Amino acid sequence: MKRRYLHSYWLYACLLFLLLPALTYASGGEAAEKVANVFLWIAVLLLLAKLSSLIEKVGQPAVLGELVMGVILGNLVLIGLPTFEPVKHNEIIGFLAELGVVLLLFQIGLESKLEEMQKVGVRAFMVATVGVITPFILGYFVGMWLIPGLESHSYLFLGATLTATSVGITGRVFRDLGKIQTREAQIVLGAAVIDDVMGLIILAVVTAIVATGAVSIGKISLITLEAILFLIGAIFFGRLLAAWIGQAFSQIHTGVGMKFTIAISFCLIFAYLAHLVGLAPIVGAFAAGLMLEPVYFKRFEEPEINNEIQAVLTNVSEENKKKIETVLEHHNNHHLDELIAPLGHFLVPLFFIVIGLQVKLETLFDPRILGLALAITAVAFISKLVAGIVAGPVNKYIVGWGMAPRGEVGLIFAMIGKQLGVVTDEMFSVIIIMVILTTLLTPPILNYLLRKEKAV
Amino acid sequence: MKRRYLHSYWLYACLLFLLLPALTYASGGEAAEKVANVFLWIAVLLLLAKLSSLIEKVGQPAVLGELVMGVILGNLVLIGLPTFEPVKHNEIIGFLAELGVVLLLFQIGLESKLEEMQKVGVRAFMVATVGVITPFILGYFVGMWLIPGLESHSYLFLGATLTATSVGITGRVFRDLGKIQTREAQIVLGAAVIDDVMGLIILAVVTAIVATGAVSIGKISLITLEAILFLIGAIFFGRLLAAWIGQAFSQIHTGVGMKFTIAISFCLIFAYLAHLVGLAPIVGAFAAGLMLEPVYFKRFEEPEINNEIQAVLTNVSEENKKKIETVLEHHNNHHLDELIAPLGHFLVPLFFIVIGLQVKLETLFDPRILGLALAITAVAFISKLVAGIVAGPVNKYIVGWGMAPRGEVGLIFAMIGKQLGVVTDEMFSVIIIMVILTTLLTPPILNYLLRKEKAV
Repeated sequence: MKRRYLHSYWLYACLLFLLLPALTYASGGEAAEKVANVFLWIAVLLLLAKLSSLIEKVGQPAVLGELVMGVILGNLVLIGLPTFEPVKHNEIIGFLAELGVVLLLFQIGLESKLEEMQKVGVRAFMVATVGVITPFILGYFVGMWLIPGLESHSYLFLGATLTATSVGITGRVFRDLGKIQTREAQIVLGAAVIDDVMGLIILAVVTAIVATGAVSIGKISLITLEAILFLIGAIFFGRLLAAWIGQAFSQIHTGVGMKFTIAISFCLIFAYLAHLVGLAPIVGAFAAGLMLEPVYFKRFEEPEINNEIQAVLTNVSEENKKKIETVLEHHNNHHLDELIAPLGHFLVPLFFIVIGLQVKLETLFDPRILGLALAITAVAFISKLVAGIVAGPVNKYIVGWGMAPRGEVGLIFAMIGKQLGVVTDEMFSVIIIMVILTTLLTPPILNYLLRKEKAV
Repeated sequence: MKRRYLHSYWLYACLLFLLLPALTYASGGEAAEKVANVFLWIAVLLLLAKLSSLIEKVGQPAVLGELVMGVILGNLVLIGLPTFEPVKHNEIIGFLAELGVVLLLFQIGLESKLEEMQKVGVRAFMVATVGVITPFILGYFVGMWLIPGLESHSYLFLGATLTATSVGITGRVFRDLGKIQTREAQIVLGAAVIDDVMGLIILAVVTAIVATGAVSIGKISLITLEAILFLIGAIFFGRLLAAWIGQAFSQIHTGVGMKFTIAISFCLIFAYLAHLVGLAPIVGAFAAGLMLEPVYFKRFEEPEINNEIQAVLTNVSEENKKKIETVLEHHNNHHLDELIAPLGHFLVPLFFIVIGLQVKLETLFDPRILGLALAITAVAFISKLVAGIVAGPVNKYIVGWGMAPRGEVGLIFAMIGKQLGVVTDEMFSVIIIMVILTTLLTPPILNYLLRKEKAV
């Protein structure tokens, strides 16, 4: 009975709503039109992202669902549905996606412990070093062998592209499965950050070689020094600042607005500073998260809830009151990450959907390019698995596969190479497919390995 | 000893950081440059907004601090500091500000009760009607008297501009002072929404008159019908949907991500639908908030915390256990607004800073324009105070002043008039000053009235 009653309402309401868009309207100009359209896009993308994250029900990480959803939406045009084409070139959604990955790395930093990372520091450095040298050399020579006849700069760029590690993808998988604090995750995160520093040094050097035909040892040393100084300086300076922020937080009683603002500004400023010294903004955001990791805040002040408890407890012993207070205290002590989470729910899925949107399935239709791409992809996987070997007494496969996704970093390398004219169209397609495959195949493989690990 | 130790650290860290920006770097292209700059702008604006909200310590609403901070930053160029000029024309920050005001109206909707609004419905309608007719007629004739010699369409536009009510400013003031649920606030909010509908009908009609020289009764009726159908349809349809969402929320146990996504998508979709029928997106967002107002969610599932309490309570009577559970239940029952709040902290201050940034203080330097503007501002205030008279047995001053700020709605009217060529440069300046004054003067006046009210 109740359902039938609901049905008639629904029918009426749906009809009403179908009527409205059929009419034409006075609108507030082109800018307002653009803004309103982005509102709709965001809502649609977020709802589809959440829908796709139901993939968790079959044991896969949510990020895989979001990526695949992005790929599907981005390629609807192949079956004659260009609905999502405008999203690909929308500057605002592009920005929100960038902000999303910065926020994700901030969250991952907040969940990582600097002490834990220091413990795996030497291992992470070794994994990063092997994980940069192996793909660079393998990429250079395999490229020369499979795609002969190009100038040597092209092979240099192919090698450089293969060195990148996209910490965003791997970090999300570890995070989705609650594994951020395992030794393997800490090695991969540490190595990916070091990798990023090394990769950007290589990029700067290779770019300089292409531009000037040669490069000075002085220039290389300078770039290297800057990047290292930034990371050491950021963490050193940031920890001091964080201690002060932590103290301030325990004294601020004016709600959570101020705490949220300081935390998010910290993240954005370090993202900017990282960019300033030539690193990816995500490295700065990750460093900011690491710094603020020990900062806690209280959702509500104790007197409020404690007074209520005291008021209802009449015949309870002092001992029991203490115990209750301890439980409440525990539930009242919130990590900064909780305050950031809603913003993350808003922005992070946009990043993975947008990454998926950029995947062009039609590139897979050319057998020659597909063959080359599969070979280069094999090089990409093998060379990072080699890096896993030096990871020490942990599951080397998890580390190796964790380093595999090239993601947006690989795309940036390829784009710069194309702009410089040393990466040919053919090689660009090959790199794009390699990035897609390392990005899409890693989440399920890593998921499988992590679950097997758990089962043992 | 400890402080000296800290000092030397600080010195070192500061030096390190001063070194870095002095160098030049390899960067990831122009797009990356642009994105990183926006990160920095957002952080700086958010920190300055929070700093300015310390105005609360002297009893003023935070929104006034943010507006004034925006005005100061926007006019630093007058003393030779063009630091904030790029922000004024930054498309991304403009979008985030728009999203901010949409979110603010969603939050205000979430805090308003539809039942309460229905109680004041008739009064709100009367206030809105008088608050549209009075300024329209007064504006038309005072304009003709003070700025003679223009075509009659210009006076029509001046009148139309004066009808607008910016619910954003007033809503924030009521909200900052915790007065959203007073009868006065509900009348103003209701009247502002109705006002917006009437204002946009007037805008559509005036625009049609300017464009075609005449307008048909059929066209006017159609626009009116659409707007009314939208609001009734949205609230009718939305309440049904909200009941279903509320049920779904009580059954979803997979964290708050899904709930957040559904809520925010609801807000954005209704903002878009409002735009589609020719209303301001904020009207749709407000309607969405009203619909979802009765939806609650639980932060953590009871079994978790209850088991912990049960485990520590050994000698406590059943009666006391029940009481404790009631207190916990109360603290565990969270309103949807709490989930949206962090996103609000991120976006809402950006809107008010951006509004402030657009204020050009140099327009105040021309005595003729300033004189005209002051006269038109007086008309703006008086005509809305007249509307307060029909508000019934409440504080009529609070309602009247609450309706006074023209804000962004007035600016939109002026801009469209300028594009159509009927609003002259002089009249545009006059309107801008009127909008500034009604926007900046209302918060302190309303604050004074509300605090006096409380004291009585």
